[in-house]
Amino acid sequence: MNSYFLSCDWGTTSFRLRLVEAGSLKVIAEERSGTGIAGTYQLWQKTSLPREDYFAAIINAQINVLSEKTGIPLQEVPVVLSGMASSSIGMVELPYKELPFNLSGADLAVHRYNRFIIISGVCSKDDVMRGEETKVVGCGLPDTTQEQWLLMPGTHPKHVVVNRGQVVRFQTFMTGEFFDLLSTHSILAASIGGDSALDCDGFIEGLHAGWAGNLLHTAFMVRTNQLLKKISPAHNRSYLSGLLIGAELKAVPLNIPVYVVAGPLHTPLYTLACQLLNIPVAAVIDADEALIRGQWAVIADL
Amino acid sequence: MNSYFLSCDWGTTSFRLRLVEAGSLKVIAEERSGTGIAGTYQLWQKTSLPREDYFAAIINAQINVLSEKTGIPLQEVPVVLSGMASSSIGMVELPYKELPFNLSGADLAVHRYNRFIIISGVCSKDDVMRGEETKVVGCGLPDTTQEQWLLMPGTHPKHVVVNRGQVVRFQTFMTGEFFDLLSTHSILAASIGGDSALDCDGFIEGLHAGWAGNLLHTAFMVRTNQLLKKISPAHNRSYLSGLLIGAELKAVPLNIPVYVVAGPLHTPLYTLACQLLNIPVAAVIDADEALIRGQWAVIADL
Repeated sequence: MNSYFLSCDWGTTSFRLRLVEAGSLKVIAEERSGTGIAGTYQLWQKTSLPREDYFAAIINAQINVLSEKTGIPLQEVPVVLSGMASSSIGMVELPYKELPFNLSGADLAVHRYNRFIIISGVCSKDDVMRGEETKVVGCGLPDTTQEQWLLMPGTHPKHVVVNRGQVVRFQTFMTGEFFDLLSTHSILAASIGGDSALDCDGFIEGLHAGWAGNLLHTAFMVRTNQLLKKISPAHNRSYLSGLLIGAELKAVPLNIPVYVVAGPLHTPLYTLACQLLNIPVAAVIDADEALIRGQWAVIADL
Repeated sequence: MNSYFLSCDWGTTSFRLRLVEAGSLKVIAEERSGTGIAGTYQLWQKTSLPREDYFAAIINAQINVLSEKTGIPLQEVPVVLSGMASSSIGMVELPYKELPFNLSGADLAVHRYNRFIIISGVCSKDDVMRGEETKVVGCGLPDTTQEQWLLMPGTHPKHVVVNRGQVVRFQTFMTGEFFDLLSTHSILAASIGGDSALDCDGFIEGLHAGWAGNLLHTAFMVRTNQLLKKISPAHNRSYLSGLLIGAELKAVPLNIPVYVVAGPLHTPLYTLACQLLNIPVAAVIDADEALIRGQWAVIADL
């Protein structure tokens, strides 16, 4: 076994590569760029190169930078990709693995190309994920017979249900995208201010309204907040954030341990929301670390 | 009393003026243009003219066209405006009349300027309307002691509750705008096709999903419908339409007579939706005729 592996987190509009020490999973060095999957796919379409070769060349260029920076030779080190890399605009389009899958990661669908290891997404009868399945594997959940509920915030949050060591079902929500749509393209845009600090009162008020009400109506309150209550656009931003998270969390059943798998942006919002809505949080798990642990678990089983 | 009045329906992006015979409320002639309130307001800002004068001149130009067309002198005929005309970008910004208001229209807030009669909007503690209050007056609802529920579809549908001859509360929904946002600006756009005929199966499936589920999740099914079920974008359009109307109609309580106040676009969708969801429709009222009857009722009381 190699002493290192390279963890690639390639999103639609961003690229991130980390050199990780095997076993300890310590991150040795990192490169980021704005070379997202979507742009890379567009550039590849203008070439006559094989798709995998083209994508591999883009990654190899970044690996060379990491190698020079660290003085570590990385030509033989395996590279693990999950998420958009296996999508229709990725390095290679792979079919979704159907539910259920084991928390060990051993039965996820994996495609190998030279030193590249690409983990495919997962589907149920009516939903899909690419990337979250690898993070779930890295969550290190306790092996119990009780159902566990993973909250994975983001542009398209996933709620993932684990039972007896298997992921048995999940649902996608459009919370983050609704926030972007409503705050930039809708009639509410003029009532929502720029990136201000969280206004706790506004967030809490929005949260309870979102939890209790009909989103198609409560969303309009962002406008009447400003028209009638003279709430400032900056505070209204927190109200809308709370509103959407409250509407999302209506889907969480009572009396089930919830794990929040998130980064620094979403962790405070979702843990506060759970606390206020009496949703018991069993643990908070760093989504970024979960990805590396999950990728390692999958390749360690190969 | 004059033998005619002019009914002006001035929206954000459209203008419509109708010459109406008093009493019979027969429409004698009509002029339409794309001179919306928003564009007119922007043009006025570049002038040094008094706001009401500028807006009046725009209307008078259209009245002259109607006068020439019909051969009827219209210089003295009253002009009634409701809706956006009293908004912050309208002919004159009028404060909202606070709930409740009488179905006769007698206690709505009215502003007069020469021959122009501008009906203001209505507010509750946390919601607003401009224009629908006039249509409600024109609905000709029976005077009963039972609550009545008016469904008024549109970009921002209103649900208006009438009790003992008064409008006692209402709620705005963002159904139509959500449809536009999701079908043009969201990740779902690629899964939603152009203006096709209604696909009944898709609409009904969406309606039940929207009624039963969490909108932040069910909206994503528009994408997985295409990815997993190979539903065509044209059919998916009807699914999304049903989904949003189903989510909106969750707000309608059981066992209350519902009046659908709509035009030819929304009437079939909302009446079908009510039928499928076991919401009893007491009557369908033409929104356009209700506007003229409402405007007439208000000025008849002056």
